[in-house]
This record gives sequence, structure tokens and C-alpha cells, in this order.
Amino acid sequence: MDDVCAAARRLAGIAVTTPLLENAELNGRLGGRILFKAETLQRTGSFKIRGAYNKIAALDPAKRAGGVVAFSSGNHAQGVAEAARLFGIRAVIAMPGDAPRVKLDRVRAMGAEIVPFDRFRDDRMTVVRPWLESGMVLVPPYDDSLIVAGQGTVGLEILDQARAAGAEPDAVVVPCGGGGLTAGVAIAVTGALPGAEIWGVEPEGFDDTRRSLAEGRRVANLPGHNSICDALLTPEPGAVTFEINRRKIAGVVTVGDDEAVAAVREAMLSLKLVVEPGGAVGLAALLSGKIPVAGKTVVVVLSGGNVDPAAYARTIGGAA
Amino acid sequence: MDDVCAAARRLAGIAVTTPLLENAELNGRLGGRILFKAETLQRTGSFKIRGAYNKIAALDPAKRAGGVVAFSSGNHAQGVAEAARLFGIRAVIAMPGDAPRVKLDRVRAMGAEIVPFDRFRDDRMTVVRPWLESGMVLVPPYDDSLIVAGQGTVGLEILDQARAAGAEPDAVVVPCGGGGLTAGVAIAVTGALPGAEIWGVEPEGFDDTRRSLAEGRRVANLPGHNSICDALLTPEPGAVTFEINRRKIAGVVTVGDDEAVAAVREAMLSLKLVVEPGGAVGLAALLSGKIPVAGKTVVVVLSGGNVDPAAYARTIGGAA
Repeated sequence: MDDVCAAARRLAGIAVTTPLLENAELNGRLGGRILFKAETLQRTGSFKIRGAYNKIAALDPAKRAGGVVAFSSGNHAQGVAEAARLFGIRAVIAMPGDAPRVKLDRVRAMGAEIVPFDRFRDDRMTVVRPWLESGMVLVPPYDDSLIVAGQGTVGLEILDQARAAGAEPDAVVVPCGGGGLTAGVAIAVTGALPGAEIWGVEPEGFDDTRRSLAEGRRVANLPGHNSICDALLTPEPGAVTFEINRRKIAGVVTVGDDEAVAAVREAMLSLKLVVEPGGAVGLAALLSGKIPVAGKTVVVVLSGGNVDPAAYARTIGGAA
Repeated sequence: MDDVCAAARRLAGIAVTTPLLENAELNGRLGGRILFKAETLQRTGSFKIRGAYNKIAALDPAKRAGGVVAFSSGNHAQGVAEAARLFGIRAVIAMPGDAPRVKLDRVRAMGAEIVPFDRFRDDRMTVVRPWLESGMVLVPPYDDSLIVAGQGTVGLEILDQARAAGAEPDAVVVPCGGGGLTAGVAIAVTGALPGAEIWGVEPEGFDDTRRSLAEGRRVANLPGHNSICDALLTPEPGAVTFEINRRKIAGVVTVGDDEAVAAVREAMLSLKLVVEPGGAVGLAALLSGKIPVAGKTVVVVLSGGNVDPAAYARTIGGAA
């Protein structure tokens, strides 16, 4: 919790205090009080700037001056690229070649160098090794206590904003890839509200955290799956994040691509928010009834909104 | 200004205090500080609930119990329907048959009765006359001091939120249909910041307020035009709104459909907000350079986000 508070101080004036939004019509339809933490409105379009900036800010200045390296499906890449830009340092980012073009374009626009890799064939660490050997610092996407602490500032803001809205959350629902956001939010929220349940939500076929919790040890995703939720396609839980999540969270539910798409549409139609599929899985868990909300106060983290316009149009177009 | 403050008291707990959002990347690109007042996130998806609820709340209770009547292209219809629902009274709404389906569906879902009319052929007052003769109260879309006062609460919030963000607006840019939102915002903002310029933005072919200001008297739109900005297609400025706007605003600029579409896309891609074309004309005026922002602090009101998913997908789809 001290690390999360330190991250909040580093991020002041850098990260947006994103609004906690409420929709009367959706509340009425689902029979509960739902508060949406709109990290879609965060700088770089997702929560990832929080952890990336916190990590880079905590580096020794001499070490930091050599630049940073990251591998990412896209949102972490933007977070690292923007944080590096703010510090005026070099960033080299390995990104899957099939990442949404909007994510690739934005990373390039922030001045980072992109090294493409194959999401299913290449080992991420091998791809970035040459730059690490030259002395640049790795900014990992989730398995790092400074990254977790940065993402945890989402939880601190939820606490403040829920209190200001006169709400005490029964549950907080968080999209879960490598588990960094889930772990950070769990630390911050359960630190102040021990009774609040933290739920992770994973895409079907990428339920590594759910299966790891069931087995009591970290297990990787099986090959052969794919999902529309590109932001959440991590190979396995992090060591740091899993140790936190096994202690702090109530559980994980999974949602299918069809449910993620329905949530993206609902967010467009009711909330007027552009949410990417991976960012909408928390809402999907509510709409599908997998996480009950009737009579409860539930916070849903909408973790990102970086989606190609053409892909978004296809997702939305069928809902008329 | 007293009327606006009274409206704010009536709307407390009813209207959402919508966030004032800022985007570092867009600021950098346009070279100024732009604050977006996201009325897209308002209850019913547009600012219209403010004026409608204020009007209905101010009615004599016995009179109010007989129900209300309105004519609207859609957003005002939703505002009136929702306000009537909150008061538990009947609402009859005349809506153009070509209004976006999402607007028609939502009005019906709020329990209002819809009477369709032809936007280009029928006289609006004639359409609703039978219900008015039965004693129901007209809630006009803009030409009414209580409606203007309700919309003016957008301006009060802008003042508070800009102050909290350490910003003093040089200009506030407002989508302009009948001029109610423009007039209300102008009263509130210039009351506290006499030096702030209020700019209205109208669609090409529906620049009745611009032409009326030029001629010094109210003139109607010429027939034969159409626009994608369905929320702004009013026949002429209101008597009440024009008297305010001629005194309080700096001027009006017009934008074409292509510029409105580009702004809808920019809002999707950069701001992650779903904005309808009529709600995006303020941003369009900035992106097209018609209202300069370099070196300035400019507030842009995004007035609504009620757009059919299929139409929205078509608008967005071309931008990939």
C-alpha cells in the first residue's frame, strides 16, 4: 500500500484522474449500482501509463538516461513510449505484428522504435535481448512491484471517488491479463475496504489466472486459442502478480468473444464510451450474469479504449 | 444568472455533473489547452435533461400532474421523457419520423407516447395542438427562459471544473441549434468571466443564428438543406435565445457534414468518446481551424452522443 501511495505521488500531474461514471438507465436495467472507472479516458487510452511511468520515474537517473525496452500487445507499449517521451529518453518496444494498427501508429507517433514479433511463435525476452544487453532497462508489462503499484493508483482513485459519490463498493471487477491491474487494485481497495470482493475477468482460452488459482500454482495458457481481447493475451500470470492475487482476490470469471463484443456495444450505446474488447470484459461479466449485481454496488474498471476504427465499426455495426 | 443557479439547485442529484476532460495528445497537436465538457455522459445521453427537468420542476404541481407535451428531433424528447418519468407524469412527444432509431427507442423505453411528424412538411405546433388543448403543458425545446436556465448549468459546471483544473477559458465553443444551450452557457460563463468569448457552431445550411446575428433580427433557415447533424436542425432562433445570444456571444461559425464526421472520428480515436455529429460540431470548428486554439484555453461542449450504432459504424468505418 505504501508503494501504491508513492506511485500516486509520482503520477500526480502526469496520469489523468479518470472519472468514475454512473448510468441511471443501466443501473435500473441491472438492478444494482454500477460505477465505471473509465481508464479509457486515461492518457494513452489505457491504464498502462500508470505502471510504466511509475517504474521509469523510480529508476536511478543515470540508468534511466540509457533508455528503456518493453514488449507489449499495445497498451503497455503506449504507456512506456509516452513515459519515455516525458522523460526525454529512448524507448525500444517489441510489439506483435498483429496488434491493432492504432496501437502501432500511436507508439510510433510517441517517438518509440518498434520491433515486430510473432505473438504465437517468438519468445518475447529473446526478441528484446540485444537492447537489454546494450544496457537499456526492461519495463515489464506486469510482473514487477513498481508496475503493480502504479496500476494500483486506479484503486486509490476508486476509493476516493466512490466515497465522494456516497457509494461503498461490494465488488470491484477488473480485466485480467498478466494480473498487474488486478493485483494493484486489489491491494489498494482491500487495504481500505477489507470486505470488498475483487474479481478478475479473463477471456476464454486465456484463463491462466483462473486456472492458476484453482491449481495453487502458476500455469500457462494452452496453445491453439485466440481472442478478440488482444490486450489480455498474456502467456501466464506473473510471479509477483500471482502471489498478490492468490491472497487478495475473490476469484476470476471468463467471458467469450461474443460476450466481450456485446459489452463493447453496450458501452457505446448506453455509456457513450469507446471501449476495446479487452477493456470491456468486466462489463461483459456483469451483462452475462456471471458476476451478480442485483442489490449491490459494483465498480467496473473499463481498462482501455485503443481499437482500430475499422475493427470498432465492424464490432458496433451489427448492433443496430 | 439567478435563474441558472436556481436550476442548478433543482438539478442536484438528477443531472450528472459531467466531467471536463483533457487530452494531452490533442493539446499538443492543436497547440492549445482544450477542455471537453462531455455532456455525452449526461443522463439521457445529452444536455437536454437539464432544461426539460428544470422546466417541469418549476411547474405548479397541479398543472404538472396533467402531463407534458414536446416536439423534438430526439435529444430533447429523451430529456422530457426522462424528466416526466422521474415526476411520474404522462409525456406525449412529437418526433420526426427520420430521427435516429436509438432516439425513438429510448423515448419509448422511458414510457413516453410518440407522435411521428415530417420534419420538412409538418408544422410542429399543429402536430401537438390536440394534447395542449386537453390541458397538457408544452415543454419547448429552447425558446423558454426556464429551459435556457437549465442548459446554463452546463456553464456553471464548466466554471467550477475549469477553476479546479487551473484553467481560465479564453473561449467556450457550443453546438447551436435553437440556441438554448448557447444562451444558457453564455449567461453563466460571461457572468463570471466577462472576457471569455462564447462561440456557437451551426451546420452549413442551418446557420439561422449566424444569419440572424448578421441581420440583427431573427431569420429562418432556407428550405432545401439537410445535414448529418440531426440534433441541430431547428427552423429559426428562439425569441428568448436570440435576445440573449445577440448580447452575449462573440459569434457563430458553420461547419460542413464532412467536418462534423471528421470530428466524430477524432472523438472516437483520441478522446474515446461516442459523440453524435451535432454534438461534435464544436470540435469540428477547432479541427478545421475556424476557431483558433493555438496558445489559448478553449472549452468545447460535446453536447450529445445519441447515434444509431449502424450509422455510427458507417461514420467511423471510413477512418481506418
